[in-house]
Amino acid sequence: MENKKIKHSALHEKVGISPPEIISSNAVNQVQKFRKTQPSSQELIAGILLGNISALSRAITLVESTNANHLAKANEVINACLPHANKSVRIGITGVPGVGKSTFIEAFGKYLTGLGKKVAVLAVDPSSTISHGSILGDKTRMEELVKDENAYIRPSASGETLGGVARKTRETITLCEAAGFDTILIETVGVGQSETAVHSMVDFFLLLKIPGAGDELQGIKRGIMEMADAIVINKADGDNVKKANLAKVEFNRALHLFPAKKSGWTPTTSTCSAITHEGIPEVWGSIKKFIKLTKENNYFFEKRKEQNQYWMLETINEQLKTNFYNHPEIKKLLESTKKAVQNDEISPFAAAQLLLEKYFKK
Amino acid sequence: MENKKIKHSALHEKVGISPPEIISSNAVNQVQKFRKTQPSSQELIAGILLGNISALSRAITLVESTNANHLAKANEVINACLPHANKSVRIGITGVPGVGKSTFIEAFGKYLTGLGKKVAVLAVDPSSTISHGSILGDKTRMEELVKDENAYIRPSASGETLGGVARKTRETITLCEAAGFDTILIETVGVGQSETAVHSMVDFFLLLKIPGAGDELQGIKRGIMEMADAIVINKADGDNVKKANLAKVEFNRALHLFPAKKSGWTPTTSTCSAITHEGIPEVWGSIKKFIKLTKENNYFFEKRKEQNQYWMLETINEQLKTNFYNHPEIKKLLESTKKAVQNDEISPFAAAQLLLEKYFKK
Repeated sequence: MENKKIKHSALHEKVGISPPEIISSNAVNQVQKFRKTQPSSQELIAGILLGNISALSRAITLVESTNANHLAKANEVINACLPHANKSVRIGITGVPGVGKSTFIEAFGKYLTGLGKKVAVLAVDPSSTISHGSILGDKTRMEELVKDENAYIRPSASGETLGGVARKTRETITLCEAAGFDTILIETVGVGQSETAVHSMVDFFLLLKIPGAGDELQGIKRGIMEMADAIVINKADGDNVKKANLAKVEFNRALHLFPAKKSGWTPTTSTCSAITHEGIPEVWGSIKKFIKLTKENNYFFEKRKEQNQYWMLETINEQLKTNFYNHPEIKKLLESTKKAVQNDEISPFAAAQLLLEKYFKK
Repeated sequence: MENKKIKHSALHEKVGISPPEIISSNAVNQVQKFRKTQPSSQELIAGILLGNISALSRAITLVESTNANHLAKANEVINACLPHANKSVRIGITGVPGVGKSTFIEAFGKYLTGLGKKVAVLAVDPSSTISHGSILGDKTRMEELVKDENAYIRPSASGETLGGVARKTRETITLCEAAGFDTILIETVGVGQSETAVHSMVDFFLLLKIPGAGDELQGIKRGIMEMADAIVINKADGDNVKKANLAKVEFNRALHLFPAKKSGWTPTTSTCSAITHEGIPEVWGSIKKFIKLTKENNYFFEKRKEQNQYWMLETINEQLKTNFYNHPEIKKLLESTKKAVQNDEISPFAAAQLLLEKYFKK
C-alpha cells in the first residue's frame, strides 16, 4: 500500500504479506518443510493416521510413482496403514460414458457426507495415461463435492497396464481408509477389463444405466450386468421418468434369469435422478441392506480375504508375464511365431513350447 | 470237424479257423502289427489323412499322454495335420446336468450324419479325472450315434488342470478335421471355467436350457448366457411345450438387453425336443446362417486366427505359473504368505513382490 504512488518496472515484486502473529512461525516452518522436503515414511504414516490430507496425497503420489526407489517406502507406509484400514464400505460404480457417473457421484457423495460419512472418490481408468485422466480428471464436474471437507477426490492413477493402475488404486483404498474415510467410491468406465479389476476390490458393485436400453449401451463390456449388485437407472427426471420405470422393470426381469449370487443377495433395480436427487437415498438404503446381510452371513469378510489373495496372485501372474515378454530372445521371436500360429503353420501349443524352451534355457 | 468223436481233456484247444483265402495274410499282418506296435508318426499321419479311425484314435491317445517322450511325436503329427485341418464347423454345446446334452447330441448328430456330414463328438470336462468321465464317458447314452460310421465319439481327456484338458481337446479337433470330420461338436458342462475354454475353440456356442428357468439353472456359470450364439430350450415335448415357448420369449427379451456381438450375429432362441426331433433342423439352420454371415464379414476367419493366438498365449501363461508355483522355495512360503495377506498383515502387492524376489533371485 505504501508504494501506491511509486512507478514500478514490470519486474517489480510486491512485498509479501507477513503471516498473522497468531500462527506460530514454528508451525509454518513445519508445514513448509513438509511441503518442500520428502517426508519420511514415519512422518507420512503419522500424518495419514491423523487424517492429514496433505500426508495422504503425498503417500498416494508415492504409491503411484514409477521410481523404483519409492517402492520400498510405499510398501512400508501401506503395511503400517493396513491395521488401520478395512473399516469402510467400498462401492464400485460403472456405466458407459454419457450415463452421468460424475453427476451421480456428486449427488451421492454429497448425500453421504450429509449423513456424516467421510467419502473418498477414486477411479480406475487405464486410458488416463493417454487421455490424461478422462474420468475424474476434470474435478469441476463435481463442483460441490470437491469443496466438501469430508470428501477426498483423487483422479485415476496412470500406468501402461491395467494391472498397474489397479494396484495403485487398490493401495490408495488402504491409505484413504487409514486416513479415516469410511465410504470409498471407485468409478470406472465400461470398457476393457477395468470393471473386473474394480469388481475385485469393492464390496458392492453398482451399474448405472440410462432409460432406453438401446444403442447407447453398446459400449458396455459383456458380463458386467451379471456382476452388478444394483442396477440404477439414472436421469429419471422430466420426460424420462416413464421410460426409466419401464427400463427398471425390464432389467429386473432380466436379472431374474441369472443364477443366484454367492452373497445371498438379490440384485436390485431402481431409478434415480442426480438432478432432483430423487432415488439417491434409496441407493444408499440398498447398499446398507447388502452390507447388513453379507456381514451376517460372513460373505463380506470372506470376500475381502479372497480379494486380498486374488490381488497377490494376480500381481505374481502379471509379473511373470512381464518378465517373459520382455526377455530379449522372446521379443525377437514373438511376432513371427504369432504369425505362424495364426496361419496354421504350427500348432499353438507347439509354438508355446518352443518359446518356453528358449526362455527357461537362458 | 474231423475230431468230433474224440474225447478231449478240458485243456484241449480247438483248432483255429483259417482266415478265408480272400484276405491276404499280408494285410492281416499289417493290421496286427499296427495294433501291437507303436506306429511311427509317419504311419499315424498317413492313416489319419486316409480317414483311418484306428490311426486317429492312436494319435489322440498320443496327444493325451502325459509321457514326456510322447510330446515331440504328438507335436510332429499335429503339425503335419494342420494344413489338412480347419475345414469344419466347430460347435460348442453347454448346459447344466439334466438339461439333456447327451440326448440332444445324439439327435443332432444323427440329423447331421443324415445330411451326409461326418461328425466328431468331443468333450471338455476337467472333472473327468475324478469322476472317470462324467460326460461322454457313458457312450451308451448315445446308442445310435455310437454305431454310426460317420460319427466319432471321444470322451473328455483327463488331466489335473483345465488348461491341460483343453489343450488336448483343442489338438484333438485338429486331428479329427485332418481325418475328414467336417462337423465338430464339443460338449462341456456348465461349471468352472470349462465354458470359456470351449468358447475359445469353437465357431458357434450353443447353450441348452430347459423350460422353467428357476432353481435347476443355478448351477450354470455366470456370463455363459452372454457367450451364447443360440439358446435352445430342450425337452419341448408333451406338457412342456407351452412352458418352453414361454421360456423362449423370456430369454429372447433378455438377450436383447445385451450389447451387440462383434460377429454381427444376433443370438437366436428356439425350442427343440431330442425325443420328437422337433426343432432339431432349425438349430442347424441357425448355425448355417451364422456361418454364412461370419464368413461373408470375415469374422469367422479372424476369430479362428485370434483363437490360435489365444491358445498360444494361454499355454505360455499357464506354463509360467506352473513353473513358479512348483519352485521349492515358493512352495515352502506360499501358504503362510497367503494367510498373512488374507489377514491384512501385509499388502497383497508387497507379498507378491517378496515371493517374486525369491523366485527370480534363485
